[in-house]
Order: sequence, then C-alpha cells, then structure tokens
Amino acid sequence: MKTLFAVIVWTFCAFSAVAQSTPLPSWNDGAAKRAIIAFVEAVTTPGSPDFVATSERIATFDNDGALWVEQPIYTQAFFIVDRMKALAPANPQWRDNPLFAAVIDKGLAGLSGASEHDLAALVGATHGGMTPAEFRAIVAEWLKSARHPRFQKQFDQLVYQPMLEVLDYFRANGFKTYIVSGGGVEFVRAFAERVYGIPPEQVIGSRAKLKFESRDGRATLVRDGSIEFIDDKAGKVVAIEQIIGRRPLAAFGNSDGDFEMLQWTTQAGGRRLGVIVHHTDDVREYAYDRSSSVGRLNRALDQAHAEGWTLVNMKSDWNAIFR
Amino acid sequence: MKTLFAVIVWTFCAFSAVAQSTPLPSWNDGAAKRAIIAFVEAVTTPGSPDFVATSERIATFDNDGALWVEQPIYTQAFFIVDRMKALAPANPQWRDNPLFAAVIDKGLAGLSGASEHDLAALVGATHGGMTPAEFRAIVAEWLKSARHPRFQKQFDQLVYQPMLEVLDYFRANGFKTYIVSGGGVEFVRAFAERVYGIPPEQVIGSRAKLKFESRDGRATLVRDGSIEFIDDKAGKVVAIEQIIGRRPLAAFGNSDGDFEMLQWTTQAGGRRLGVIVHHTDDVREYAYDRSSSVGRLNRALDQAHAEGWTLVNMKSDWNAIFR
Repeated sequence: MKTLFAVIVWTFCAFSAVAQSTPLPSWNDGAAKRAIIAFVEAVTTPGSPDFVATSERIATFDNDGALWVEQPIYTQAFFIVDRMKALAPANPQWRDNPLFAAVIDKGLAGLSGASEHDLAALVGATHGGMTPAEFRAIVAEWLKSARHPRFQKQFDQLVYQPMLEVLDYFRANGFKTYIVSGGGVEFVRAFAERVYGIPPEQVIGSRAKLKFESRDGRATLVRDGSIEFIDDKAGKVVAIEQIIGRRPLAAFGNSDGDFEMLQWTTQAGGRRLGVIVHHTDDVREYAYDRSSSVGRLNRALDQAHAEGWTLVNMKSDWNAIFR
Repeated sequence: MKTLFAVIVWTFCAFSAVAQSTPLPSWNDGAAKRAIIAFVEAVTTPGSPDFVATSERIATFDNDGALWVEQPIYTQAFFIVDRMKALAPANPQWRDNPLFAAVIDKGLAGLSGASEHDLAALVGATHGGMTPAEFRAIVAEWLKSARHPRFQKQFDQLVYQPMLEVLDYFRANGFKTYIVSGGGVEFVRAFAERVYGIPPEQVIGSRAKLKFESRDGRATLVRDGSIEFIDDKAGKVVAIEQIIGRRPLAAFGNSDGDFEMLQWTTQAGGRRLGVIVHHTDDVREYAYDRSSSVGRLNRALDQAHAEGWTLVNMKSDWNAIFR
C-alpha cells in the first residue's frame, strides 16, 4: 500500500511538473516572460526569501488595453452609442441635445470632442433607470450581436490570449486575480466570469449610484444614472484599499491610468511585480502610446525603468494576440 | 487496487460523515439550529432542487451584536473615547468643543445625547491624518489593552462561540463569508482575519474618505477624517451589490440596521436564509430589542415571521455564549 501510494504521489507530482514547466505558451522567451515567471516562483516557492502566504497573493489587472482591445475606442463607448440609438425613438427629447443628436445620427463620430462631462451625460441617459441585474443582462445581450469595426468579431473574442494565460498561471499559483478597471463595474461583470474566469466580487470598476427602493415591500436597487466613483488613476488605489484592503503583489496595466496602481503595488516593499502591456503591433493589433487619446501611455513609459516595471512589447513578446 | 480505492473512499466518506454529523455544537437542538442546517444541506447537496454552485455561495454577517457584543455601546465607541483621551494633550484646542471636552473628561458618559453628526466629528478628529495601515495597527494595539466594562475581557474575546461555529460550518460547505458592518471597514479588518477567519477583502463596512498623495514620488493613502459612506440599513444592500455583485444566499443580523440586507437576501428567489440573533439573555449577555438605542430590533422583529426569517433566541438556542 505504501508503494502504491508512492506511485500515486509520484504520478501526480510528475504531472504537475509537466503542467508547470510550460506556463505562458503564447509568450516568446524573453525578458518579460522571464520576469513574470521569476516573480511567481519567488513568491510561491516555500523556503524562498520572497515567499508569500496564499492568502496574501493578490494580483490586479486593468481591463481595457490590458486584457482586451481598447482601440479605436473603449468597448463601453460602442455600447453607449448603440444604446443611444436603440433608445432614441422612445426619447424624442434627446434631439434637443446637440451631443445626443450627433451620436444618434453619426454614431461614434458624433462623440469626437466630447468632454468627460459629456460622456457622463451619455452614460446617465443610457445606463440608468434599471436594476443592476437588468443592466448586466442588456450588456450580455449586446455583446452577442455587436462587432468590432476592424476585426469584425465580438468584443469578448478580442481578449488577449497571453493575458488569459497569465490569469490562469497566477490562479494556478494561488493568486486571487482582480480586475481594476476604469470601465463600469457592472459592465465588466456582465462578461468577466465567463471570459476571464473572474467572479463578480473580484471586479472593481467605476460605479453608478445605486438607489434602494422598497416597491410593495420588495427590496429593489435601481441605477439612477449618475456616476458615483471613477475608478481610474489614483481612484484605482483608493478602490483597491477600500474593497480589497491589501496591497497587491502584482499589477498589470497599459496606460497612464494605471500609473498610481503600479506605484502602489511595486512600492509596497518586498518582492512585487509591475507590468505594462505596450501596444507595439499595428499589424496584429494596434501601435500607440504617448499621443493616443485612448489608453495614453506617456508618464508610465517614462517611469517604467526607474520604478522597475516590466514592459511587454506586444509585437515581439507575444506569439499570439487573441484568444 | 479497486478494493483499496473503495476502502480509501469509504474511510474518507465515513470520516466526513462524522465530521459533518455534529455541526454547531454550541447550538441547542431547536428550530433555529435545524433551519440553519436544513438550509445548508439543501443548497449544497448535489441533486437537491435547491442546489447552488460553490461560486454562488455567499453569506453575509453583521458584526456588532451578531458576531460580538455591542452593549452597552458599540466597541468602536470605546475606541473613539480612548483615542480622544490619548490624543487630547496634543490637541488642547479640543477643549473649546463642549462635546469633545465632555468625552475627554467623562468618557462614555460624555457621549450621551450625541447626534450622528457629533459622532462623525469625533471620528474625524480621532480617526484621520494617518494611513489605513497605521490606523489598523492602532486598533490592533488598542484591542490588546482595552477591556469590556462588565466582562473585564478584551473585546475580541467577546465574540459569540455559536456564530464562530456558523462561520466555520458555512465555509466548510463552500461559502464565502462576508462581514457587512456599520462599523468602520478598517476598524473591523484590524481583527477580522485573526478572530473570525475573514480576510480583509471580505470585510465591508463604513468607509473613511481616502486621499491619494505622492510624497517624494512615493504613493501614499491618507485617511482625511471624513466619512464617505455609512454601511447601515439600505447602505448595506448598496455596498453588497457594488462590492460583491451577487445577492447573498444567507444573511445574519440582529437589528433594524440589518432589515434591508435581510430582505435583499431572502427576497431574491430560490432557497435563502435570513437569521436574526435576538438578544434575550440578560444573565449571560444582554436582553434588549425594541427600545434599545444600541442595536434596536423593532421593525425586523415585527416582520420576521412574514419574511420567513429565523429568530435565534440567545437564551434557549445557545448553550455557550462566548468563545
């Protein structure tokens, strides 16, 4: 029986070793892949000076541009435009608003030059007056029919295969993986579990104001259309502290909107990992950084070396882009 | 080998059966204990019409009065008074404020008649100007020396043994256990993992406003002393949706502050559990409900039957009170 047990254990360990010897297959061998693997091994190997208990293994991931495509504009902007068009017939008064009329008539083109305040107004008009569950159902339904203008695929198919492998690799090593997105938290929750394997309680994002109502004695929550919290830049750090209450061990981002989250993570002391996905591949995806209005990467690119952040060169580090 | 395997499986199952046949030992056999066990078995037994996948098993617990003592006043109020006295010498201007002077001179007695606005001012004066990590360290240190005036024990020893067993029992059955407290989230995090086995990311509470600062290039968060969010009554439902993003399967509370959370949980459809700990034991703990200013239980007591909530009679249902 002892022998049989040993065989079972050996078989299991051998299998695990094989499974673990080839993580991140869509990553070319290079500095970025090596840095990620070296970090995970350092914090998870018992006896390592950098070993961290499983309960402390938190990794945070930006979504737009870090886990899925964000060009030519954030996916949620496509959603807003489609919702505006769909709801326009029932809201004839929207034509009195020049911005709303432009979006209804010209789609995304009507958004050009819109300020943050304008965008909030669009979100308010199209994302409010329903329960969070109803909103998630609308997003889920929309994702089935909407197509990315260049790739002509569903948006949830335009997720980065190498990053899905990172999520799996971290989770296989005991990490809790969180999304920390500037997008709306309920928008991201509508697909995060199915697409990324990330449950709703591990999605942090910008928040709509919720109003509690008792309707005939039934407890109800309604999105009132206003934005309560923008989960971007320093907001990401505030949300991480308020919701997670631990400093992450690792953070992945791609733009200046992730600068503070990367700092908060890698300046915490002990072994940490900060990673920036640099969009350098205009053939397979897009190439943009300092001058892009979407996913602008300027300050974080300047500081990456000094802060010890790992830059991922999408063109040379990834042998596959999409799932 | 097949036989050996069968023996191993049998041994394992037998062991599990023994382990599971005696949950909740500090609960007397009665309607409350039976309702809790029947619920857990219904949602976790494969093939049961009420079976729920592990990922959906969320249970939320109020803290003050549901997991630990809240009389004669909330533990955090003792903390506020002690902080005010400790910081008074360095803040002579506090004597110009009649409420502050009363608390410094008379302790808890100085708090009588204080409004919610007054309490916010006390929290602002004593809980701000430090990082969340510094604040948690102060709370943890205070818990070691402070004593409950009646029981003369540390506050974190005055946690309810029967509820610790409920937490363990739910977790052993695949539930994620969350605290949803009116107390400050960082105050509760200072002991929740050690005392309840609940990690920081599963503690939801009232929130101080956090300010992000870059000090010589170092990312820093500072509590500015103001209260951003009160996690009580309907606020508990809003926070559950924003942070967890799922409706709980089970909720435990003890006061009208938990009314909306209980409704939100048990009105969600499918098999649910709502439990109210009714403080009925003035010998071993306290007896209070409708007329108490702390942990008032009136509306929820009236509605418990109609809503199908389980009432725990502390005096008769619990054969032990404290850990």
